[in-house]
Amino acid sequence: MKGNNSLKAVRGGVTAAKGFTASGVSCGLKKRGKDLALIVSDRPAQAAGTLTINPMKAPCVDWAKKLLAQGTARAIIANSGNANCCTGKQGRKDAARTAAWTAAALKIKPSDVFIASTGVIGRFLPMDKMDQGIRAAAKTLDTHGSLSAAQAIMTTDTRPKEIAIQFKIGGKPVTVGGIAKGSGMIAPNMATMLAFLTTDASVDAKTLRQILKSLVPETFNAITVDGEMSTNDMVILLANGASVTPKIKPGSAAYKQFFQAVATVCSYLAREIVRDGEGVTRLFTVSVTGARKPADAQKIAQRIANSALVKTMIAGRDPNWGRIAAAAGATDVPIDAEKIAIRIGKTTVFKNGEPARIPISRILKEVDHPEVPIQVDLGMGRASARITSGDFTEDYIRINARYTT
Amino acid sequence: MKGNNSLKAVRGGVTAAKGFTASGVSCGLKKRGKDLALIVSDRPAQAAGTLTINPMKAPCVDWAKKLLAQGTARAIIANSGNANCCTGKQGRKDAARTAAWTAAALKIKPSDVFIASTGVIGRFLPMDKMDQGIRAAAKTLDTHGSLSAAQAIMTTDTRPKEIAIQFKIGGKPVTVGGIAKGSGMIAPNMATMLAFLTTDASVDAKTLRQILKSLVPETFNAITVDGEMSTNDMVILLANGASVTPKIKPGSAAYKQFFQAVATVCSYLAREIVRDGEGVTRLFTVSVTGARKPADAQKIAQRIANSALVKTMIAGRDPNWGRIAAAAGATDVPIDAEKIAIRIGKTTVFKNGEPARIPISRILKEVDHPEVPIQVDLGMGRASARITSGDFTEDYIRINARYTT
Repeated sequence: MKGNNSLKAVRGGVTAAKGFTASGVSCGLKKRGKDLALIVSDRPAQAAGTLTINPMKAPCVDWAKKLLAQGTARAIIANSGNANCCTGKQGRKDAARTAAWTAAALKIKPSDVFIASTGVIGRFLPMDKMDQGIRAAAKTLDTHGSLSAAQAIMTTDTRPKEIAIQFKIGGKPVTVGGIAKGSGMIAPNMATMLAFLTTDASVDAKTLRQILKSLVPETFNAITVDGEMSTNDMVILLANGASVTPKIKPGSAAYKQFFQAVATVCSYLAREIVRDGEGVTRLFTVSVTGARKPADAQKIAQRIANSALVKTMIAGRDPNWGRIAAAAGATDVPIDAEKIAIRIGKTTVFKNGEPARIPISRILKEVDHPEVPIQVDLGMGRASARITSGDFTEDYIRINARYTT
Repeated sequence: MKGNNSLKAVRGGVTAAKGFTASGVSCGLKKRGKDLALIVSDRPAQAAGTLTINPMKAPCVDWAKKLLAQGTARAIIANSGNANCCTGKQGRKDAARTAAWTAAALKIKPSDVFIASTGVIGRFLPMDKMDQGIRAAAKTLDTHGSLSAAQAIMTTDTRPKEIAIQFKIGGKPVTVGGIAKGSGMIAPNMATMLAFLTTDASVDAKTLRQILKSLVPETFNAITVDGEMSTNDMVILLANGASVTPKIKPGSAAYKQFFQAVATVCSYLAREIVRDGEGVTRLFTVSVTGARKPADAQKIAQRIANSALVKTMIAGRDPNWGRIAAAAGATDVPIDAEKIAIRIGKTTVFKNGEPARIPISRILKEVDHPEVPIQVDLGMGRASARITSGDFTEDYIRINARYTT
């Protein structure tokens, strides 16, 4: 893409788009650091999103479901350090109060406020701290507040994740930005993952939904850190039209650019989540091709991407590709060992039922990259799937054996 | 059980039963230690077994399938250090040669020799070393050779696993013994797990099959170390009738005792495999009750037993029970958060959609046991499943990031 059609990265994350402010404060939910983020649009915004499918979901997920049905919102209040999940009636009440108090501080309606929580499950939210925090967050809203908000949603993340992309419609800048948190419990179908996207494009909720529906499976749902699936995940996209540009309609040139911009934001944030996964030092991608059905490809890709033996093999720069073969066979999808081909990087290690007669040094070279591409062709059909995963190191254990205590 | 009906533990493992000899030698397949085991019956034995269901299976698994169909055998030759899997035509030829050479050394037929391999996948068996090893193993067969054989099948196991149980039929001793190896790639449906059982009972292959079919799902298939499924697993049971006791018929008193003896051997070896799992310091059992179907219970029990977050929680003696709740919801089995009840040890932590209002110190106490019982009642039906798993420590990573290199 060139000239007016090009996308460019800009600073400002979730506050890069016009009409958005954000803040991040510390109110004592975590032992240290910011733990409450607020993102606000100065005018009504169209809203779309994706939520966890785990039935043990938190009340904030049910709350978000209602707002997504209405398709409009003004603000997102998100806390880290406590998931407010498995907290029963009290938890539902606390979630409603969080929205009500945020709405009061912003002089908007509670039904305009998304709430999101991440952290330990099964503990009640300390509402006195939340009360203080919400007031402080509302008072410190800033057009440069994105980084603070990104920091405030971190749990075991080691760094904040933010990005913004700009393009032009009729000569006027339109911006899409986002922040995210990930780290543990990251696996397809929304992990302990929060991603908040904002844009000043003029676009309706229905179109936003279509865009997310097409992008989330390839980005946020195509990553895994530990195969876990969280109770609290959400991706929310708010569009407030503050760019004062013509409404984006599906199929138009502007739509294509906007789609590209949202895609860039989603895939950057998704990759950053794996890259900063608990204990992750190196990435690997698993592409399964030649499956009979997309669901088969997905199942096998997942099995390989989440295999503890494959993940430790990547950590150890180990040429032990048999672990990929064993994992490929370990689902209920029927496969044929004679038809399968396994490649690491550009090197075929197994094909037509035979191991490649190559020196181990060549495989050693392929696994010694910061990102190792693994391809498994099943030779049975045309369906495929692709997942990005991280290696498994002692640090994952260290982090997770000492999380709440 | 008392008097003549009682089962008692005896020494001798796989050579405790009459008519069996065994040996274990070092032939250079592993960097150090014994790596080739031989178990021989001095007369034809009835044979039954269970094999991996991984389609990426090794040729020794196909070979075993044929022998199991014929229902008789004389010997088992098993090597560690090399799985001879994903080795194509050469691998099949090497497997057949292993059986032929063993048969020649023992002056029996190749079709009377089970072969088993465990170790790295995708490397050819060094047949010169195998040749030497087979000769040495045949020469050193001994009625006290069980421990050597148990040592020779170890890979990352830290200790040999053997047991023998004796009871009486008509005043005469009948013995069931076994050896096993496990350590990594341990998960239901046969992991990198080899278990060889011998008995001098007089019992036909059909009855042996029925007994294993009923016992394996509750023992070797009800354990998990890392959720992996190997390409080479097998459980083999040989019965040579050398006790010279009446034939054991289903439904008889002798059958019940024999069944109990085989059950004791299987459950002891299965537990030993988890206990000695890579990096395992503490065990936990996951019981899922109240499911609509056994398959549902099994799926959820598996998900929890293999959850990296639950396993690190056990390693860290962490009262973070929300991870159990999140894992319970992370399968495609529909569950109802309002109906679920979660117990750790004797303490209910979540019920009727509400967390128990108890001090964390009580949960801390429950997770601070060498074996932590976790129970999840789904409140939807009457089906249940139970799995024994081990915790996840830094050592698992250390072991598996440095396996082949």
